[in-house]
Amino acid sequence: MAIDPNAPITITAYDWVPDFARGLVRDLRVRWALEEAGLDYRVEYLPQGTQKMPAHRARQPFGQVPTFEEDDLTLFESGAIVLHIADRAPGLLPEGPHARARAAEWVFAALNTIEPHLSDWAIASIFEADQPWSEPRKPAIRERIDERLGELSNRLGEAEWLEGTFSVGDLMMIAVLQMVGGELADMFDRYPNLAAYRERGEARPAFQRALEAQLQGFTGKPPAGWGDQ
Amino acid sequence: MAIDPNAPITITAYDWVPDFARGLVRDLRVRWALEEAGLDYRVEYLPQGTQKMPAHRARQPFGQVPTFEEDDLTLFESGAIVLHIADRAPGLLPEGPHARARAAEWVFAALNTIEPHLSDWAIASIFEADQPWSEPRKPAIRERIDERLGELSNRLGEAEWLEGTFSVGDLMMIAVLQMVGGELADMFDRYPNLAAYRERGEARPAFQRALEAQLQGFTGKPPAGWGDQ
Repeated sequence: MAIDPNAPITITAYDWVPDFARGLVRDLRVRWALEEAGLDYRVEYLPQGTQKMPAHRARQPFGQVPTFEEDDLTLFESGAIVLHIADRAPGLLPEGPHARARAAEWVFAALNTIEPHLSDWAIASIFEADQPWSEPRKPAIRERIDERLGELSNRLGEAEWLEGTFSVGDLMMIAVLQMVGGELADMFDRYPNLAAYRERGEARPAFQRALEAQLQGFTGKPPAGWGDQ
Repeated sequence: MAIDPNAPITITAYDWVPDFARGLVRDLRVRWALEEAGLDYRVEYLPQGTQKMPAHRARQPFGQVPTFEEDDLTLFESGAIVLHIADRAPGLLPEGPHARARAAEWVFAALNTIEPHLSDWAIASIFEADQPWSEPRKPAIRERIDERLGELSNRLGEAEWLEGTFSVGDLMMIAVLQMVGGELADMFDRYPNLAAYRERGEARPAFQRALEAQLQGFTGKPPAGWGDQ
């Protein structure tokens, strides 16, 4: 549960990202799962741009982070990685029958039902911010996000975690809910149980260690031309 | 591997969807996996609107299809369902070590790396079609889709399947690639290996049975007011 240069597990992360992405890059999810599982890991930091080079694409065909390597296994996709960690270490599957399926259900819900709407918001508010349709699109995106948050809030109710005990499903959901910030921060006002749920996740020592480790890793420089018009 | 009203597995599907969605509703993925696995199933058809009612939300908090029920297990999220089927029946995991993780990686890649861009296209071309920004947004969305297709094409190369032997990872990827049609149909022109890959999947008897079963199930009526301005 610490960064150890001799650990058998290696993950990849960026050595620099813009401020708005700090704390949100997807290696956070993998670091958090490893911390919960008590597994040491080392980090290979990629300067911006090298993620699109052949050496990294050999392990990640889409040129992204994170990846997970251990012995003869190389994995990409944060959802697959955290499920793999949950399979091999205790503490990340819920108690009770069909534990893996019930955890996987929420990992997919986080990544395929909730996150795409939050990514759409990121496109409108960051990547298409200078387009004339950016502001007019936002109300409909907010509405779609609000519908999903309301449904999640209803399902969670007064429970502590989605499947009784903490699982990788909660881990991924809370990691995705990190994107509800900035202009969206008020969206939790209507769902105090979701706000408390996210805070419970963020208060876990493993989350805190993972976040701190990601933030400490940004020791690199922006790519040439960053910030130029 | 057939629809059997007494089967222990029940899935949910819609009894009616608009033409553009026929063959694309997500129960196709689950039907296909069940057909590949040789598992009989029954279908509970939901008239449009009832998916948002409390009875269905008790099994699917986001008011969608499909769901999967068997004995004491109720699952939602097509990704989690097909992985669960792959875990309990032969023929849906690749050969070799770490089979589950390697299959899961591609299920997540399909749903979290490829599909969101195709969903974005669907938003622009269908749900926001009457908005002034619909057409201006399309070139950038096409570019993001093309980037992902090119990366997938590079990784697949001349291989028959993504992980050597057919797996649920191919199943989900090919199901998602069904969305590359209509105005997007020409996007496969640059990637003949992807076109052939999708055709290999569609040619599987299990896919054909699943598609036929979905299309045969649309025996209901549109909701009141459908098509009104």
